[in-house]
Parts: sequence; structure tokens; C-alpha cells
Amino acid sequence: MNKITHENIQVGEIANGLPLTIPVYRLKGDGTGPRVYIQANMHGAEVQGNAVIYQLLEQLHHSTLASDITLVPYANPIGCNQKSGEFTLGRFDPITGTNWNRMYHSHLSLVDSFVAEHLDSPLTEIKEQFSAALVQATQTLLDRPAHSINTGKRIALNLQRLAHEADIVLDLHTGPISSKHLYCPEYAKASARYFNIPHVLLIPNDFDGALDEACFCPWWALSDAYKKQGRDVPVLVEAFTVELGSQEKIDLTEAKADAVSLLSYLSHKEAVLDSSFKPQTMTRYACMLQDYLTYYAPMGGMVEYTAALGNHIKSGDTIANILRMERYLSEQPLHSITLDQDAIAILHFASASVNQGTELYKFFTNYFEL
Amino acid sequence: MNKITHENIQVGEIANGLPLTIPVYRLKGDGTGPRVYIQANMHGAEVQGNAVIYQLLEQLHHSTLASDITLVPYANPIGCNQKSGEFTLGRFDPITGTNWNRMYHSHLSLVDSFVAEHLDSPLTEIKEQFSAALVQATQTLLDRPAHSINTGKRIALNLQRLAHEADIVLDLHTGPISSKHLYCPEYAKASARYFNIPHVLLIPNDFDGALDEACFCPWWALSDAYKKQGRDVPVLVEAFTVELGSQEKIDLTEAKADAVSLLSYLSHKEAVLDSSFKPQTMTRYACMLQDYLTYYAPMGGMVEYTAALGNHIKSGDTIANILRMERYLSEQPLHSITLDQDAIAILHFASASVNQGTELYKFFTNYFEL
Amino acid sequence: MNKITHENIQVGEIANGLPLTIPVYRLKGDGTGPRVYIQANMHGAEVQGNAVIYQLLEQLHHSTLASDITLVPYANPIGCNQKSGEFTLGRFDPITGTNWNRMYHSHLSLVDSFVAEHLDSPLTEIKEQFSAALVQATQTLLDRPAHSINTGKRIALNLQRLAHEADIVLDLHTGPISSKHLYCPEYAKASARYFNIPHVLLIPNDFDGALDEACFCPWWALSDAYKKQGRDVPVLVEAFTVELGSQEKIDLTEAKADAVSLLSYLSHKEAVLDSSFKPQTMTRYACMLQDYLTYYAPMGGMVEYTAALGNHIKSGDTIANILRMERYLSEQPLHSITLDQDAIAILHFASASVNQGTELYKFFTNYFEL
Amino acid sequence: MNKITHENIQVGEIANGLPLTIPVYRLKGDGTGPRVYIQANMHGAEVQGNAVIYQLLEQLHHSTLASDITLVPYANPIGCNQKSGEFTLGRFDPITGTNWNRMYHSHLSLVDSFVAEHLDSPLTEIKEQFSAALVQATQTLLDRPAHSINTGKRIALNLQRLAHEADIVLDLHTGPISSKHLYCPEYAKASARYFNIPHVLLIPNDFDGALDEACFCPWWALSDAYKKQGRDVPVLVEAFTVELGSQEKIDLTEAKADAVSLLSYLSHKEAVLDSSFKPQTMTRYACMLQDYLTYYAPMGGMVEYTAALGNHIKSGDTIANILRMERYLSEQPLHSITLDQDAIAILHFASASVNQGTELYKFFTNYFEL
Repeated sequence: MNKITHENIQVGEIANGLPLTIPVYRLKGDGTGPRVYIQANMHGAEVQGNAVIYQLLEQLHHSTLASDITLVPYANPIGCNQKSGEFTLGRFDPITGTNWNRMYHSHLSLVDSFVAEHLDSPLTEIKEQFSAALVQATQTLLDRPAHSINTGKRIALNLQRLAHEADIVLDLHTGPISSKHLYCPEYAKASARYFNIPHVLLIPNDFDGALDEACFCPWWALSDAYKKQGRDVPVLVEAFTVELGSQEKIDLTEAKADAVSLLSYLSHKEAVLDSSFKPQTMTRYACMLQDYLTYYAPMGGMVEYTAALGNHIKSGDTIANILRMERYLSEQPLHSITLDQDAIAILHFASASVNQGTELYKFFTNYFEL
Repeated sequence: MNKITHENIQVGEIANGLPLTIPVYRLKGDGTGPRVYIQANMHGAEVQGNAVIYQLLEQLHHSTLASDITLVPYANPIGCNQKSGEFTLGRFDPITGTNWNRMYHSHLSLVDSFVAEHLDSPLTEIKEQFSAALVQATQTLLDRPAHSINTGKRIALNLQRLAHEADIVLDLHTGPISSKHLYCPEYAKASARYFNIPHVLLIPNDFDGALDEACFCPWWALSDAYKKQGRDVPVLVEAFTVELGSQEKIDLTEAKADAVSLLSYLSHKEAVLDSSFKPQTMTRYACMLQDYLTYYAPMGGMVEYTAALGNHIKSGDTIANILRMERYLSEQPLHSITLDQDAIAILHFASASVNQGTELYKFFTNYFEL
Repeated sequence: MNKITHENIQVGEIANGLPLTIPVYRLKGDGTGPRVYIQANMHGAEVQGNAVIYQLLEQLHHSTLASDITLVPYANPIGCNQKSGEFTLGRFDPITGTNWNRMYHSHLSLVDSFVAEHLDSPLTEIKEQFSAALVQATQTLLDRPAHSINTGKRIALNLQRLAHEADIVLDLHTGPISSKHLYCPEYAKASARYFNIPHVLLIPNDFDGALDEACFCPWWALSDAYKKQGRDVPVLVEAFTVELGSQEKIDLTEAKADAVSLLSYLSHKEAVLDSSFKPQTMTRYACMLQDYLTYYAPMGGMVEYTAALGNHIKSGDTIANILRMERYLSEQPLHSITLDQDAIAILHFASASVNQGTELYKFFTNYFEL
Repeated sequence: MNKITHENIQVGEIANGLPLTIPVYRLKGDGTGPRVYIQANMHGAEVQGNAVIYQLLEQLHHSTLASDITLVPYANPIGCNQKSGEFTLGRFDPITGTNWNRMYHSHLSLVDSFVAEHLDSPLTEIKEQFSAALVQATQTLLDRPAHSINTGKRIALNLQRLAHEADIVLDLHTGPISSKHLYCPEYAKASARYFNIPHVLLIPNDFDGALDEACFCPWWALSDAYKKQGRDVPVLVEAFTVELGSQEKIDLTEAKADAVSLLSYLSHKEAVLDSSFKPQTMTRYACMLQDYLTYYAPMGGMVEYTAALGNHIKSGDTIANILRMERYLSEQPLHSITLDQDAIAILHFASASVNQGTELYKFFTNYFEL
């Protein structure tokens, strides 16, 4: 039985003085594997990751561990508990509207001077030192006077500090109503085959504030910078956003399957030494981020979503019917919405009521087998 | 083809001066059947009733109509459009918290003087005159100075005025995540067999602000008052709240089935003269309102709902698992919640995240075959 | 220096397992004075009462105390921390819409049997025993299975249990934008002169779910029940809702003045033995609850509030201008709203943007000098 | 009397099919002055600009106009009407959290090819043609298929199209609780002296999604691009965000003063030919955008704001007291917050309840006389 330790980290305070804390669970490996960081529930309604962490812990405490593994459920103590009607309004700070997963910090500015100083350092030293530099730079941001850090940034920086201590970062999210999909940096495409996830989004080296980007962008930029200096340094860290399905749902059976999926990847990376975790045989489809199509509601109305998630839509297929009961007599009350290209339906909006311009669907277009 | 007419009724104004209107559709029968009023979407997230009205209109314009039928989709123009995140926060006035379906007016005070004045009037006169009195009293409330009527009351009174013009009132709602069920006044139990709805809540003559109650309570009290005077006058109006299933969903196929269910009842009442609409053979279960059990979350946490809606639970069955990841090491992280009596699961909360005391489930207990 | 003790009472749990607690401060008197309970911030935006409790504690720890005094700031740990934009959306449960100050329990059902059993008991025994019965009955409600108590009820019952241990209950609230006023049960009218509050609402013995009512209604009903039995038992408990001014504001200077106002009343009741706390000389105006006029916005629009709070309005005076910029050309863009009776403006809505039917003002009408 | 025309422009549709429209008022000048565009209320709670437009219209219909003037009150029909409690939650899209004033489009990509094509064109042609290009490019964005434009973008683009038809753009906003201040592009510093606004923020040529930036950035970039080609073309358009004071308030008297302030600037620009509108003599303070200090709450708690807005704070001055009633005994309950540099307090948060990291204040630092 592996020992699991538990610590609560304070990441803020609310109006009545209550401390905001996040629970951090840790397991120690034999030190030979890549360090792993897994968090869940940064967006309040996206709870299934907590169940996946539960199922991971159930597996990990009797697995053979090469790696130190840190797991953080309930990563966002504000988002987790923000209700508006039955719904968990945890996607953005309710005061400012800022998306909780757009407040991580870009440490790209560290890259050039690091490369200059470590031009000929051995790879292990580069890995160790740059990781330490990222942790340190994050801690320095947290050590600034309290009045210079906003609420979401403080939560994000505390999580990011933990994440920079790892070589593998998995941020567990869900879509609104969604099929499983994986945000995968282009350089880590080969790793995507070890997750039991049929849809893979390949993302470029652009920082937009999310945890996965905050973790892989500096390492990717580092690799590029060495390349400019004529040295070939691989990207030494992998970071993924794992989209587990739909929000507002806990399914322990599915969570176990997802835990096995993550363990398959972690076994491949030799973090967990357990040969029983093998990836499923499945066709995996990939899509470049610029081909990931957001389809907005072309009119306000009441929507029947007809495109099954994960399904391959043909150009001309109906993807939704929009009901407009205020025009039953004057015009056509029912509008059939079609897509004008082939696509895979990945997720759709969580409500049937939409304004014109509400994000209705997201589609893989120009997709290909991975 | 029956002619359908359309009118927009103004029920308010919002801050930028925009009028709030509701669309009213009307069909004329030959005058021999009971007048019918059907509305939908008083609670903003409960949209499926609009689709049912769509499917009803599709049927009704080529049916043989004995009755005048009035149909009001989008009954609440504020609730309909109130978004909070993806969710339609349309259960209560966002300013005051008042449930939109608790603002109808009780006209019980009209009963005693009416009976005194119409002690020996023929039944048709009682029906006609009391209906007119209810309409008139509602109009009088609306005619008060504008500064004496709050936002929700003005919407409710406008709808109630239309409803009092009918002999049959159907208010189309949905639960959060829910099986189909019917709120049926006890005296109309026999009618419940004509809806294709397996679960029937029998409600007493208590006014709690809802449209069905506002419509049947005065007539029920009228019947009781005549009884006290030694005269047997049946309850001359039937009003039901029809719970169509889950909120935030449009399903046109299911809506058609529900339209057929309503037409079965309307055929039975000889409002629609179409012998093809027959109730399905099914076991219908009934439950007295006082036996309708609300089960609150006994602890805060992340909930896996395991009781299938419509299912008959046995005492001791697990109805939910509650995950508590903050106590993975210190205590039991997974709590199995059981019910200690036999029951039918009717609906459950729409989110997996609950506070201690959040309404988790509603159950029929002490249920019986109708 | 009086000793102050501190205890945290758990009143719930939220979705991530965090316990909801309220801080309870207690001072001990010499046992000769009436026991006192003071709470603040049951509605989340109404924070000034916390500052008043702060200033009270600053005074009380060097006052001469005859009474045990219990003080509860931050009474509602959910409402306190519920943000929606900059605003603290703490008036109602964000899930259900239920007003947090309408969930206390009526123990009126205890009265008749108590009187039957204690018909000839001495007054001190009546006081002691009925108080114990109220505490016990509240505790019994809390001891029911966790699944039978909703979130707000659990918070309310925990507070109510503390309040029933006292002979004097002060619930500190604020209006939206408001002058100071006092909700005072009619029987306690004489006590209202000891608060430095110029506006007094006299309320009848009707239970509507608020803490003051939950505390005084049973005692008032007890007094009435004894009267029916021919015995004169005074109402032995006093409970007030103290409206301190406007929400979303902390003013420590004003809080000190309000603390002095409360201490003036507590000195009069011989809870605090300090002759320096005397009521200010001021004209106090009273209004019966049924004359407390809610004035709803007669149209949607942008409101300039022109009636100064606390001011005595004459019939025909303009109380607001409503701007309607969408009709600048078509109709009159600026509407002057007048009141058609004499009144004192007590409070107005917190925003300039109103729907038709939004609560614009509350007025004392038919007011009189106390 | 100048003729005012009125048009409603549709900018969207909501869930019940209702069109979203904005009112557009227009006056025609003699064609000799710069075209003027003024809008208000893009953020829902910031209503005072509507009153300023009202007062402007009252002045303008009997002024001598050189310019065509377009005025748009209620610019955001969703934000305007989004209530959450009493508060108008109109700063961001309630579904996505996106700030309504960050969705305008940057047309910077037009600049280079335009300069290449119009290297030697006369100034009037440059002005006319580039303005037309901006209008055209905005229209082209709006003409894309409806499913490619989100809700906020559609509103923003409709407004931006109107704004690009003008040479002077004034976007009327307010802060939460705020003194008057002006966002002024650095190149237009001289114009800032003609507004009666004592605080001027000088902003660089960076696009962050706001209307003023969308309007001036392309022209500023155009000027820079010509400079690179060795030709001196001034920035031909001026655009300002005018912060009128506090949100959620209508004050018609103050609005008249602000209308006069805008007319003083418009007279200076010879848009309105009325010599009576002169700027007030006052000391105007300026601050570079990078010196505009956001001061976040260093702890959660209840805040008494003590820095008067517009006041010049000295280093070490107390700007707020933060009350922490949960630690009355254990620690210091009242924290005095000081600023460690000289500053002018421009605005503060609208609520006394803050989380750690909530934006407490904004200050001008390193300010100087304009």
C-alpha cells in the first residue's frame, strides 16, 4: 500500500473571513519516473474530474509507483460553490466575469536568458533548473504584496506552482454537454494514443491563460530557443487538458474508466509501473485548433439538438431544429439548421434556450485519423 | 383547416422601455365543448411545453373542435430570457427571489357572496356567472393604479385572466431532471386516467399561489359552499399542472407524444371531437400531496444519482452516492445514501454539486394504483 | 474588563465539503438582567450590523452587565459570500429564491398545551419553562434526520435556538437605500422610544417567517391565551428588527452611534447597567404595518429618485423622474411621478434601472408621532 | 429647431424570439463640422450616460450644428435588462462572462495596404476613404453567416459600424463608485482640456477590445504608418471613454452639467457652433495608463472606504478599514489599510464585502498637471 499524504493549501479568503483552501494529495514513487500533477474542477460545474481523482487514488495506493504524483480535486473553492439556481456558475469569477482558466501566468520571458546561461548544460540540468526557475518565478509572483494579486490569479498561481513541480500535467475539465476529447500540444501527439479518448485537439504554442498552456508553452519555447542556437532539446514536459464529458454530473463507473485511461498514459510514460494499463484499440480523430469550429445560434429560439455527440456529420446534415413559437402564423415556426461541411460534433450548449449568437456547437472539421 | 388567430398581450415593460409581450393563439370550436386554456414556460428553464403547444397547434388546425382553445407559449417573457451561465434562471424573479408560479391571485373571497346571490340559479348560469365574476375580479386587479402591482403579479394576472375564461386549464411545466407526472386536484382523479402520464399527485383544496390552484380552488370552494347550503353542485372547472419531464430540453418527438396525451384528455372531455385520441393502457400510480417526500442532501458534496426516475425503490435501496474528496484520508470519501421506505423516484436535482440541505429528490411514498 | 468568549457553530456544509460556521460571541452578566441576543447580516448585503456588533463589543467589555449577551455577526455564511457582479446577492437562497429571513419556524402550536399545563404557574416559572420549551422544540427540529431539513432552514433553526434562549432579540438588518427604521411589535411600542431611530413600524401578531416574529409571536400568543383563561400575563419577550440604513456599506462612526442607540435600549431594560446611555431627544414617527406603502414602478425605465429618505412628502410631491430614452421623439421622454398622499419616504430601490412593477419606494402613510 | 430623427437598429434576438434593438437618434449639421458619434450604457449598470444623451438632445435641437451627430442611448439591450437581485449585472455577457466592452473589432490589418494604395492621396481623400474602409470592413464582418458571430460581437459590430462613420466618438461609461475621469489617447491630450473632467488617463496605442480603442487605434496606426513612409498625417479621429461618475444612478442635474462639458469639447472641435460652451477653469490631472494602479483587497472582509474619491492621498494615508469579525478575540478585528505612495483615488468597489483579491480601488499615481 502506497502512503497518501494530505495537505490543505490556502488560496484566498472570502468576505466573512473564511479561508479558501484546496486539498492536495500526494504519493511518492521511487524517484525514477516523471513527476505527475493532476487537478480537477477549476471550473465549478465540471465536477467529474473529482470522481476520476477518487478512482485514481483507489488504484494508486496499491500500484507500483516510479513517480511522485500530486492530485488536487476541488481546485477552485469559489467556483465549486457558486450557485445560480440549480446551476453551478463556476466558469468565471462572478464579480468580474474572468474565466478561471484564463488567469495562469506566462513565464515565456524566462526562456531567452535561461538558454543563454545554460547553452551547453546537460539535459538533466536543463530540466531540473528550468523547472526550478518556473516554480521560483511563480512563487515570486505569489510573494508580492497581497494588494497586487487578484482573487483568481492567486488561486491560479497556487495551482501553477504545484504544476511546475511536475513533468506531466493533466487538467481535468468537462464540456457543457460533451463527448470526451483531449487538448494536446502538437509536439505530444504521439502520447495522445495512450488515452482512451477518441477526439484529440492539436494545439499550437500560443498562450491564452490556461493551465496546460502555462505548463507546456515555456518548455516548448525553450526547445525552440535551443533549436535557434543549433541544439536539439526536446520538449521536456507534457501537459493536457482532458475533457471528460458533460458538466454537472458524477458517474463513478465512467470515472473508473477514465482513471484507467489516464493510468494507461501514465504507464506508457513509466510513471506507474503496471503493465495492465494498456490503451484501448480505437480510432482516434485529430483536429487542428484552427479547424475547431464554433457554431453560434443563427437566431434566438428553443433548440432541439439533433447531432449526436461524437457523430460524424455530413455536409448538409441537420444539426438542430430551432423553434420560434412567436411566429407560428407569420412565418415558419420550426427552422432546420444544417452544417455545410463534414464534421464531428464534439459538444453542444447545455440549454435549449439560446440567444442569437449563443455558442450552439463545437465541431471538429478537417479532422483526420491520429 | 381551423383558423388560428394570434395576438400579443403586453404584460410589462423592462428597464430600457421594451414592452414585455406574450403570444396568444386561439382556435374557435362550435361552442358545444368546454373552453380550454393551455400555457407553457412560466418557469424560464421549462421549455418543453412550448414544443408541446407547437405539436398541439399542428394537430388542432385540422381537428374537429367543439371548444374554443387558447394556447400561450413563452408565458413569462422575463423568466424565458434570464440567463446565468448556460442556465436559464427563470424559476424566480431575479430581483426578489419570488417564484413566478406563486404569484397568482386567490379569488376565494368571492365564493360566499356568490353562493348567497345564486343559491337557486341553474347550473349553466352558475357556471357562466362565476366564471365571469372571476374574470372580472382579475381584470379589476389589473385595472388598479400601475404603482400597486409588482412585476410578477402583473404577468400572473394577465395569464390568470385568460385562464379564468376557460373550463379546462393546463399549465405545462417540467421538473429539473424528472419523469412525467401530473398535479391533479383530488376531485378530478377520474380525469387523470386520460393523460398518458404514469404518476399522479393528488392535491387538496389549498391555495399556494400556482395557476392550477388559482383556477380550481374557487370552483372547488364554490362546490363546497353549495354543499353546505344543501345543494349539490359539481366542481365545474378542471385545472392541472402537467410536468412533462426535464427542464432545458426540447424534444419534438416527445412533444408530439405529449400533445397526443393532452388530446386524449381533451377528447375525453369532448373539447376535441376526434375519437382517435385514446389514452394509453398503463398502470398509473397516485400519491397524496402530503406523501410527496422531499429528500434533502444530508451532507454537502458531489452526488451520483442512482435512483432511476420512475423506478420503484425498495426501503434500504441506495438512491445516491455522495463523494467527499476533502476527506479521502480522514474519513470515508464515498457515502451511500439509502431511503428507508418504499417509494417512486419522481425527480432529482439538476446538478451533481449540492449543499447540505439542497433538494436532492422528490419521491412518491404511500403510493397506490389509480 | 468583561470576558468575551467565542465559539463557532456549524450550520451546514457546501458542495466541496467545507463546513459553514457562524461565530458566536458571549458575555456573562450578573444574572439579574434579561438575556440578550443580537445577530447581524442574515441578508448578505446588509453588512452594517457586523460593524454595530463590533462597536457593541468594544463598549460591552468594559460595561457593567446585568445580562448574559450573545452576539452573532455574519449570521448567514452563504448569503454573506454570494456575489453576482459587485453586488452581494444575499437576500435569498440562490438555488431556490427563498428569502433567508422567511425560514424561521413558528412554534405557535406549543402555546395552547403549555397554557393548559401552566395555568396557575408563577410568572417566573412560565417564563423559564416556555423559553425552555421553545429552545427544546427548536432543537428537536434540528435533531431530525439530516435529509428532512433544507439549507436555509438549518441555518435559521440554529440561529433561532440561540435567540429563544434570550428575553430580548435584536436582528440587525438594513434596507437597500434606506433611512433608519425599526420593526416593533405593537405591544412593545413603549420600548421603541429608547432607540435613536426616528421611524417605527408597528407590527401585529402575524408570523411571516422572520426572526423577530419567530421570537415574539409565541410569547404574544401565550399572553393572549392566558388572557382567554382570565389571567393577565404580559408578553415576556421583546424582539425587534433594526434597520440600520443602506446595504453594501460599512461606516464605523455610524456603527458606533447605532451601538449607543442599542445600548440606550439595553440600559432601559436594565441589561446593561450604565446610566450614560440615554435615548436622544427626537420626534419618533410610527406607522402601522398595513399603512406601510410599497410603491412599484408604474413603468419600466431609468429612475432619478427625488424623495429624500426620512423626508415628509406632501400629496402631489414628485418622488421620482423616470427617463424613457426610447421614446424621446414619439412621446414624453421624462415622466414625473407623484404620490397622492402624505407620506414619509423610508427606503428606495438600489438601482436606477427598473422594470414596470419593481419595488421603487416604501413609505410610511397615516403616520403619527409615537 | 433642428430636426431629430429616430431609427431602431436590430442587433440580435433572444430566446423567445424577441428582437433586440437599439434606438439611434440623428441630427444633421451643415456638413462643415466633424461627424460625431455618442453612445451610452454599453455596460448595463452604467446608466447616467442615457441621462446625458437626454440633456444633449435637449440642447442640440436648438443649437447651431456644423456636424452630423448620432446618439445611441441604451446601447446594449441585454446588459441593460440583466438583473441579479437589485443590481444590473450588465458588465459581461451572463452566459460567457465576456466583458461587453471588449468585443469590438480591431481593423489594424487594413492600415498597411491602405497606406500603400494612398501614399500620396490628399488628406481629405485619406480621411474619407479610410473611414469608408472601416465602415465597410465592419459591415463585411456583420454580413458573414449568422452562425459565425457571437451575441456580444454582433451588438458591438453594429455599434462600431455607426462609430466608424464619425470623426469624434464619445463612449459614455461610469465606474462602480467613481469620480469623473476621461480615457484619452495620448495624441489627443490637448482636447482633454475642453472637458470639465479633472482626471485624465492617457492611453497608448494598444487595442484591448474597447470602443474608443477600436475607433482611434486604426487612425493612430495609419498616422504612424505614413510617418514611416516619410509623410506627416495627423491622427484624423478622436475617441474617448468618458467616465461620468458612479453606476446605478440617474441624476438629471449632473447630467446637464455633463452635457455642457461634452458641448464645450464639441464647440472647441467646431461641431456645435455655440460660443457659450466654454470649458471650466479647473486643474486637470493626468496619469499614464501604466501608472493607473489597481489596488486589490489584501484580505477578505468588510470594508469601510475612507479615501474620498478625487482626493489626493499622501503616502501612508489610510484608504480603508477592513473589519474581520470572525477574529475579534483571536487577532486584530480591524485592519487599517494604507497606501505607500502619493495618489489620487479615482474609484472604489461598489460593495463593502470583498474577497481577498477583489479590486478595491483604482488610483492615479505619478500624476501630473495636464
